[in-house]
Formats: sequence, structure tokens, C-alpha cells
Amino acid sequence: MSVTFAQGFRAAGVEAGISAVAGKKDVALVVNDGPINAAAGVFTVNRFCAAPVQWTREHIRAGRADAVILNSGGANACTGQEGYAQSQAEAELVAELLGTRAANVAVCSTGLIGELLPLDKVLHGAREAYAHLAHDDAAGQDAAHAIMTTDTVPKTAVREGTNGYRIGGMVKGSGMIAPQLATMLCVITTDAQVSAGQCQAALSVGTDLSFNRIDVDGCMSTNDTVLLMASGASGVEPDPDEFNRLVREICSELAAKIVGDGEGSSHTIEITVRHATTEDAALACGRAVAASNLLKCAISGNDPNWGRIVSSLGTVPMDVAPYDPEQVTVDVNGVRICDGAKPARDRSEVNMDQRQVTIEIDLNAGDAEASVWTDDLTHEYVHINADYES
Amino acid sequence: MSVTFAQGFRAAGVEAGISAVAGKKDVALVVNDGPINAAAGVFTVNRFCAAPVQWTREHIRAGRADAVILNSGGANACTGQEGYAQSQAEAELVAELLGTRAANVAVCSTGLIGELLPLDKVLHGAREAYAHLAHDDAAGQDAAHAIMTTDTVPKTAVREGTNGYRIGGMVKGSGMIAPQLATMLCVITTDAQVSAGQCQAALSVGTDLSFNRIDVDGCMSTNDTVLLMASGASGVEPDPDEFNRLVREICSELAAKIVGDGEGSSHTIEITVRHATTEDAALACGRAVAASNLLKCAISGNDPNWGRIVSSLGTVPMDVAPYDPEQVTVDVNGVRICDGAKPARDRSEVNMDQRQVTIEIDLNAGDAEASVWTDDLTHEYVHINADYES
Repeated sequence: MSVTFAQGFRAAGVEAGISAVAGKKDVALVVNDGPINAAAGVFTVNRFCAAPVQWTREHIRAGRADAVILNSGGANACTGQEGYAQSQAEAELVAELLGTRAANVAVCSTGLIGELLPLDKVLHGAREAYAHLAHDDAAGQDAAHAIMTTDTVPKTAVREGTNGYRIGGMVKGSGMIAPQLATMLCVITTDAQVSAGQCQAALSVGTDLSFNRIDVDGCMSTNDTVLLMASGASGVEPDPDEFNRLVREICSELAAKIVGDGEGSSHTIEITVRHATTEDAALACGRAVAASNLLKCAISGNDPNWGRIVSSLGTVPMDVAPYDPEQVTVDVNGVRICDGAKPARDRSEVNMDQRQVTIEIDLNAGDAEASVWTDDLTHEYVHINADYES
Repeated sequence: MSVTFAQGFRAAGVEAGISAVAGKKDVALVVNDGPINAAAGVFTVNRFCAAPVQWTREHIRAGRADAVILNSGGANACTGQEGYAQSQAEAELVAELLGTRAANVAVCSTGLIGELLPLDKVLHGAREAYAHLAHDDAAGQDAAHAIMTTDTVPKTAVREGTNGYRIGGMVKGSGMIAPQLATMLCVITTDAQVSAGQCQAALSVGTDLSFNRIDVDGCMSTNDTVLLMASGASGVEPDPDEFNRLVREICSELAAKIVGDGEGSSHTIEITVRHATTEDAALACGRAVAASNLLKCAISGNDPNWGRIVSSLGTVPMDVAPYDPEQVTVDVNGVRICDGAKPARDRSEVNMDQRQVTIEIDLNAGDAEASVWTDDLTHEYVHINADYES
């Protein structure tokens, strides 16, 4: 179940020979058949953003998208005017096939930075995808497969609202994840009857609490894009609170799947910072800990090394997160191994056998809290990133 | 040649059974025999700073140190009042042996965070070291060996000034390096006739341009300490500019040796950012690039992946470093592979066979520049840090 779970959407994923992996699907197309075509997007804040991001960000402001064309095997980032012209050519072809305007077609790319796309292959793939568009679950799965890069599994999520409206999403992402978004592309579809403004509001909050709080390797991408497209095909006007919650849940589930599939990872680490003075303070502390290579290596070695937790916590400036080190406690998997910046229960009491590791930090400084998610750092991560398309 | 290169200093390094590595020297003692005993220090800004840092920072303010006692095999960090009492006990014993006050004895520790020292062993080691104090080069080398942890080589540097005054130094550090100082201990000695104020001025600038600009893994330690001790034994009052320059050179050479011995590294990466609007802007850009795990993995795979350079550069906020992405050029080992945020010469032209990799980024935005140094990220780094004292 993926982007075709909601009524009013067709999808396809095809092999166009762009990816270096033989036989891999690498072009996906998702089409919104309406009756409404509301859309919203959230994008990387990287100053070197890719051509497809420039194209899509510019045109989605109008609140409409009839389709999105996506490819893996090339990011079309740092490719100048020629790269922008490529994104435009993709949009124009899809628009022609669908009988709409290019401005109503969103474009996403993922892969190596700094190389133009093999445009003939991409356009050929777009035509093929158009020819294979279908409403069924298999078509949604094909699309989810086509956007994968170093992902080991396709990542999808669905929710159903009161009176039967539906939301479905797919995402790709595994490395270059953080601190804002990820090397990720995400398309969420819904048949709820909602406006572009409602889509943007739900997506902005949902993204902020999910994709913006995961960190696989501390690297921010040039291509991150999260799109929400509404067809209105269910005819259901959703309760706004419920709709926002369900979009947030889809974002969270997809974000968790990214971390769960973090490049080479053997543990997923959830870091919760409690009793901070503000949510931003809690987030800053959580992110500092999540960014520690030393901690991430220790976790991969099944070592709940709290010294590496507090030494990262100690790098957050006082004005960003006021707290007294002597009041800080750290629990790993429910065992308080640091109390008041001193050792408490023995580290050997912590069971590290499971993939999931929970780190709970209590600052004892206020009432706010926040959670962030990351992965451990393994030999396999280095292998993947030393040898990826080099 | 190490801390005993300068006249007026004795040193020793002995095995006290603190380190988990059998036969490894783990206690070092450096004694300043005067006639003057000026001293200055620079310390970690980590809010969870270790007991020996608290002790030494507090007492060196008076501008005097007659000796410094150092141990590897335990950081005495996050150990509360009991840890502080241990540092004090070390200082008191050394003071008693030397016939001075405890406040005149600096203390440094390095190793695992969150465990008290085996104090009996440390004090026994201090007595042994005192018994072995000597002026000769071998004694200085023993001290340099005794402070090593994951270092693969002892790291020392010397300089000689006009009229024959001398400066010598030793440092340990290999991982948990950055962004301010490193998991490092550094002792620099000089027989120049200089005041504590001159020492502090020379050391602060020297540290800022060297140890504060290296980044092995983005992790800031709880124990970093850099000490400069002056005996005045040469009787030479140095030219202030020359003295400052020589201290800076010693710091730079020792910092380069830390990066050259970065845990598991196969490449040393020098990142120079030119034509920034300010030095801080250049530094922020350099540090953002130096912190990229993805880039560091690519370099370990001999891949001059400039996409990972500019995507890191693009995370630096506009108000921190104003520049236009379209004006940015990137050279790796002298080959311009990115020009105006677009591909230029082919990546295959870059020779990555040497350990040294130079990355030159031109922002074309102003007149300031700065360099930072880091290492690549290898399987070996993960191995060392997943299995270190776990």
C-alpha cells in the first residue's frame, strides 16, 4: 500500500537504465486524477539546492500539482542552467502526456551530485511510466521501488480517516540524513477534500516533527523534497485535527522507516531530552548527542557509553540550553547509568541486544521535551559511502 | 626531543598499571626547576569538564605551575566531588615530593569518561615518576609515551629562538578531536624568560590557530588541556613576536601530528576557504565541510566527491557566511572540479594516492580566509571506537 491507496491517484515505476544497478526501476510517476489537485511541498534549505527542487518549489507555490515525476540514479544538483532545463523538459513532457501545463508537474531527482541526467533515458522512462500508470497497489509499490537508492527496502505508510478518506505515502532515504530533512524524497497522497493551504499546514507541522528530527549521518542533502497531493476523490471533508494528525503519523512512520534502514546501521537510537527550558533547547541537546560519531560507534559495539553522551551534551552552549551538568541524568534502555554527571548503575546492566536503543536525558531545568532519532555508525556505513559511485 | 629540550625541566614516564594495555607507560611527570615558574593554560569549553580540568584551570590562574602530573588510562571526568578529590590528592602528593604547594601542581588525565581513577596506582606512579625524573631526551620521550591512548606514535615538537632559548612540547590526541581543542593533552615547556601573561597570550593565539582548527570526528572532549610552562633557565628574554611565532609553530606542528595520527585515518585533509567576507565565515564553512561523514568516507575511498563538499557548504546559514553559490569554486589537490556550483574538470584528473588531500574553496565574496584540518573516515575508525574499552 503506497501512493495509490488514496482514490484518484495512479502511479507507475519503470526501469529506464539511469541507475547503475542493472534491472533496477529508476523512474516513478504519480498522477493526481482529481477532481481537485491541491498540493503542498517542503524542501531542503541547502543553499546548493538541486534543479528539480528549484523547479518544484517555484511552481508548487500556486498550490497545485497534477503529477510528480521522480528518478533515482542522478540528483541533477549543481548542474547549472542546463540542469534546470532538464527538470523543465521532464515537466513539459509529462504535462504534454497528461494534457496539462508544465507548471503543474512536480519533479524530484536523487543520486549523485554534480552530473547532468541522461535526459533521453529519463524522458523515455517518463513515457514508459505514463504507459504503465495504474490505480492498484502493485503500481504504488513499483513507484516506491523506483525511487530507492541505497535503501534496502521500499518504504510506505497508509492511514484511513473517519468516513473513509485515505492517506498513503512513499519515501526514499537512507544516508545524508539531517539536520533538516534528509537525502530523501517523499510523496504523500490523499483523497480527502482539502485545500492547498490545509495541505501545506499539515505537511509543515508533520515534517517538522518527523523528517526534521532524524539524523543518520549529520549531512544535509541538496534534493530533499516532501510533497502532499490531494485528489478530493473520496468526497470526504476531513476533520482538520484528524487530518493533521494522520499526515503527521504518516510522516513519523516514514521517518522511522528511514532511520530503521539507515545505511549500514545495526541499531536505531531514539534520544529524548526531558525537562529542558524550551523545546528548542531540548532539540539542540538531542541533536548534539545524535551527531556524535563516537557515541554512534560505541552503540554499534553494544556499548552504552554515557561519557560520549554527556560530552556531546556539554558542547551545547549555555545560552542555547540552560542546565546544570550536576543535575543531569542519563538512562539507556531504562537503566540510569549517569546521575548528576556521575556514574550510577553499572553499564553492564544495560541490555543492548535489540536494534532499538532508547536514550533518555533529563536536564531537570524546565518543562519542555523533544525526541530525535538516529542510527549507529558501522563498518558497513563506511563501506557504502566510500564506494558509492566513486 | 620533547619537554626536556628546554633547560630547567625534568620529566619522566612510567608504567603504573592504570592502562589496560600491559607494559604501557601511563603516568608522566614534568617538573619546572625554574628559576621562574610562569605558566598558562587553555582548556576545553565542554560543560561537563573533567575533575583535573577543574583543578588545573582554577589554580593556573595565578600564573604559576611547578609541575604537571598526567595519566592515561582514565579521564576522571563525570566523577563528581570524589573525582575532584582524586585530582587534588595527586597534586598534594607531587607538591609534597617537590616541597611546593598543591596549588602549584597542574593535573591532567585522559581515558574513559565516568570512572574514578585507581588512585593508589596513580599515586604510586607519581612517586615512581618522581624517582625517575631526568633532564635528558629519553626522559622527555618517556613522558610523551606515557600520555598516549589510541595514538600510534608519540608526538613532540621543538623550536629554538634567537640567542638560544628553547621551546619543546608533547601532545596526545587521536580521536574525539573538535570543534574546540581535542581529546588531547599538551605540555609545552620553554626556558625563555617570559611572564605568565606572555605565556597566556602566546598560548591563546597559538591554540586558536592550531588545536582549535582540527577536527578528527567532530567530538569535543571533557579533558582537553594545553599548558605552557616557562623556567627562564636560558636567561634569554625573547623578542615577543618571535616567541609568539615559535609557540604558534609548535602548536601547529603538534596539531598536524594529531591529524596525521587520526584514529584509523588514511588521508589527512586540509580545507582552505578563501575570499570569505570574514575569517569567522571562512572558518564556519571550513568546519561544515570538515564535519561531513559522507565526504570523509568518500576521501577514504579515494573519491574527490565535490558534491559532498558543496552540500556541506550549503548548510552554513547565509547570515553566518554570505556568498553566492553560483560564484563558488572547489579545487581538490589543485584540480578545479567545481566552478560556479557546476562540474568543471573531471574528477578522474584528481590524484588521490597521497595521504595529504588539499581542498580549496573560493567563495568569491570577500578578502578573508581560514584553514582547518581533518581526517578521512575509515573502517578502522569504526573498529577503534566500537571496541575501545567497551
